[in-house]
Amino acid sequence: MADKLTRLKSILAEQRDISLAIALADWDKQANMPPGGAKERSWQSATLTALAHQRFTSPEVGQLLEDLQSSAVSLDPDSDDARLLKSTARDYARRVKVPVEFEAEFAQVTSAAHTVWVKARAEEDFASFLPSLRRIFELRRTYAGFFAPYDHIYDPLLEDFEPGMKTAEVQKLFEWLRPRQVALIQAIANRPPIDDSFLFGHFDPQKQWDFGVEVLKRMGFDFNRGRQDFSAHPFTTSFGIGDVRITTHIDPHSLGSGFFSTVHEGGHALYNQGFFPGLAHTPLAEGASLAIHESQSRLWENLVARSRDFWVYYYPRLQIVFPSQLGSVSLDEFYRGINRVERSPVRVEADEATYNLHVMLRLELEIALIEGKLDPSDLPEAWNQAMRDYLGITPAALSKGVLQDVHWSGGTIGYFPTYALGNLISAQLWEKINQAIPDLPDQFRRGEFGALLEWLRGSIHRHGAKFEPQELVQRVTGSTITPEPYMRYLETKFGQIYSL
Amino acid sequence: MADKLTRLKSILAEQRDISLAIALADWDKQANMPPGGAKERSWQSATLTALAHQRFTSPEVGQLLEDLQSSAVSLDPDSDDARLLKSTARDYARRVKVPVEFEAEFAQVTSAAHTVWVKARAEEDFASFLPSLRRIFELRRTYAGFFAPYDHIYDPLLEDFEPGMKTAEVQKLFEWLRPRQVALIQAIANRPPIDDSFLFGHFDPQKQWDFGVEVLKRMGFDFNRGRQDFSAHPFTTSFGIGDVRITTHIDPHSLGSGFFSTVHEGGHALYNQGFFPGLAHTPLAEGASLAIHESQSRLWENLVARSRDFWVYYYPRLQIVFPSQLGSVSLDEFYRGINRVERSPVRVEADEATYNLHVMLRLELEIALIEGKLDPSDLPEAWNQAMRDYLGITPAALSKGVLQDVHWSGGTIGYFPTYALGNLISAQLWEKINQAIPDLPDQFRRGEFGALLEWLRGSIHRHGAKFEPQELVQRVTGSTITPEPYMRYLETKFGQIYSL
Repeated sequence: MADKLTRLKSILAEQRDISLAIALADWDKQANMPPGGAKERSWQSATLTALAHQRFTSPEVGQLLEDLQSSAVSLDPDSDDARLLKSTARDYARRVKVPVEFEAEFAQVTSAAHTVWVKARAEEDFASFLPSLRRIFELRRTYAGFFAPYDHIYDPLLEDFEPGMKTAEVQKLFEWLRPRQVALIQAIANRPPIDDSFLFGHFDPQKQWDFGVEVLKRMGFDFNRGRQDFSAHPFTTSFGIGDVRITTHIDPHSLGSGFFSTVHEGGHALYNQGFFPGLAHTPLAEGASLAIHESQSRLWENLVARSRDFWVYYYPRLQIVFPSQLGSVSLDEFYRGINRVERSPVRVEADEATYNLHVMLRLELEIALIEGKLDPSDLPEAWNQAMRDYLGITPAALSKGVLQDVHWSGGTIGYFPTYALGNLISAQLWEKINQAIPDLPDQFRRGEFGALLEWLRGSIHRHGAKFEPQELVQRVTGSTITPEPYMRYLETKFGQIYSL
Repeated sequence: MADKLTRLKSILAEQRDISLAIALADWDKQANMPPGGAKERSWQSATLTALAHQRFTSPEVGQLLEDLQSSAVSLDPDSDDARLLKSTARDYARRVKVPVEFEAEFAQVTSAAHTVWVKARAEEDFASFLPSLRRIFELRRTYAGFFAPYDHIYDPLLEDFEPGMKTAEVQKLFEWLRPRQVALIQAIANRPPIDDSFLFGHFDPQKQWDFGVEVLKRMGFDFNRGRQDFSAHPFTTSFGIGDVRITTHIDPHSLGSGFFSTVHEGGHALYNQGFFPGLAHTPLAEGASLAIHESQSRLWENLVARSRDFWVYYYPRLQIVFPSQLGSVSLDEFYRGINRVERSPVRVEADEATYNLHVMLRLELEIALIEGKLDPSDLPEAWNQAMRDYLGITPAALSKGVLQDVHWSGGTIGYFPTYALGNLISAQLWEKINQAIPDLPDQFRRGEFGALLEWLRGSIHRHGAKFEPQELVQRVTGSTITPEPYMRYLETKFGQIYSL
């Protein structure tokens, strides 16, 4: 058995090396590549993607997994090896079900659809995007069919991003949450609006950058094992546990957008820097799922960096950096400003109180589309109706409505729920953390985040992808994913800010 | 035949995609990678290197080449397809002769030797490097043996860098050149030294960078298809014709080092940006050889950017950038300063008049070592003796002598001659260019380099690796590589500068 396991690990390590080369090509494309490099880069990425796929789906891997399955019973089920075999068998079984020709067609359709969407959004023209959208949902239905039987046709799509999670579970969580969040937002809308005008003006980009770097360092981001660059859209990527990179986008006219995205990506990066070193060069050196990853980024962005305690330490420092803009703004005014709730039609600009509603809207529409209950041609109206129901607003333009997100044009369906699940998990973890570290608020007020990071490292980060998300949340919090802590958090925080 | 050619091209394109991913990993390592990424990056590069090797040396490629060989006679021998088949057959025949186990051992030995050399150089300790050096020359002898029979054991090593070039040819060129360059340097040494102290002091790095970028743009470097970054050691790399990158190192205390290395790498980059687009995604989208590549970089660095005409245009502009340092230095003083001849023991600091002698010294020692006529333990003394014979100096330290170059520790033997061959070719081209463009000096005085670039594009760049170096030089200049033009150039230029 040892020989076969060694052989399997070596194949997986090769596949991982190729995957990380693809990740580097992508990072470089967004951070550095001159425009002229696009065509040749796409050839390179396509070749590497095919190689990684071939390496993983070879009959040899299937045979090794089969041979190892019987002897795996002798392993400690929580050992790295047992977990590696389990997750590899799961991924292998899924990957071999999808014909290579289908993958190629899907890649081609979505690549073209992305270009169509960019133009459609710029021209506020849903009709030109409609054929692409229709084709993509057809292909995703075909894709789901490869995994039949299933409880729900959306299950196989969700599984790509949240292993083990079922559509029915997510729907149940969201059904509990929706009326409560709608009611909260309604209550807030009846209160006087908060002034956050001081967050807009001119803020020297270099000073914004430097302040963000200082915060990243105190959070525990290790610049010897990572770096930060500029890109149009912030993201986090890794080329190993020792090379974790984040990008940020600094807006010279807005103080908040660059800073909170830096902290958000920093949260992702701390996760990737925190995997147990023994997992390096294996498929377990990844986050457990997108929702778990998002729980880390949003925990740092919102529960930490939008807390009053955080700014007790940092606000005087920020005032020194931007004295003319913030010198006459009090800590409490600042704290309320960065937590202003606004019913915006745009998801990426949404605050903590409204964000999940944007996700729920998308999930419902995705499910209706994939079930065939909603025709893509009726999508704009369905979108706007849901917006009115949940947020009480109607987008003024398609680019602020149904055409705002990149996901569908890229064929990414089943991804949106992970954003909201990440929020829920972050609040569940937060309650556990505050029990474990009773003086956490005092630590924040002193600019200390070491105990928090240590807790996250020990409870979440070190395990990498060893556990499926629901199992991991259960192990750490004693419950699977549940919405109550997040709702408690929102009601307490915004109840206080808006005097509800 | 068409099917088989298409299949071969598709395999070569895949191999190229993998090779460019390796190049990106290496560029990133030098330009961006945090220290913690080193170990995992080395795994990734090793996996990709093995994949590229497997892809190229597969029996299928051998069979395709064999099948295509007979039908290739019907092709125009100068067509891209005929040349692709010829160069691929040559490379394939060479690559399959080297056992994979040998490559692996050599990679391991040289990787370790590099670390040993870094330490040995820092500690001025040749003895600690001696075992590594001995082993590397043994392995290179074994390597040469794979290609027996040969005229000279050094031929197979040279062939890796200069296809078609023979040791005897290089020796003949250098034997003609050596006494003449030694005599020139001796004559210069008898003249009063030139003052170049104004090139040293403090020069704001950003201003140096900006000036270099301006020059690169006027040279014709296309920033839409390339970029420049910082690295410890300047180099040029490409991830396609549309993505050609140079790096530079700016020394805040020296004006010349960063500028001339920027122009040097710019010369390499113009070559890579100038390949005929139809060669993209094939192995012909490369330079013809290292010597041809070096002829381009040194042509721009020396024949262009160390000419007086160049500075008639640029010197007033440079004085505006550094008024306090250069305001009272005349154009002629500046021109003489940047062309100061000095008998330095260090190759990378050598000027145009002495550079080739550094190369000749290394070639003779490499040949003596590979022939077994010189024992590695006798190398330091042999080095110093040759230094005295050629330059009349003795290095004050091993780090300025036998331990100065990285090449041998990496197993790179046969590479040094390409530097000098590049010089010779650059002067051969220069005579042709000045015949073709009689008012070239006037164009330079107006800051115009378009006609020069157009000539280089049409004569050299566009062909990529279609022709072997001697054939290419013959086609363009009517002669194979010859030393007379370079010697004429040196004698005219330095005769004038030093009033010989």
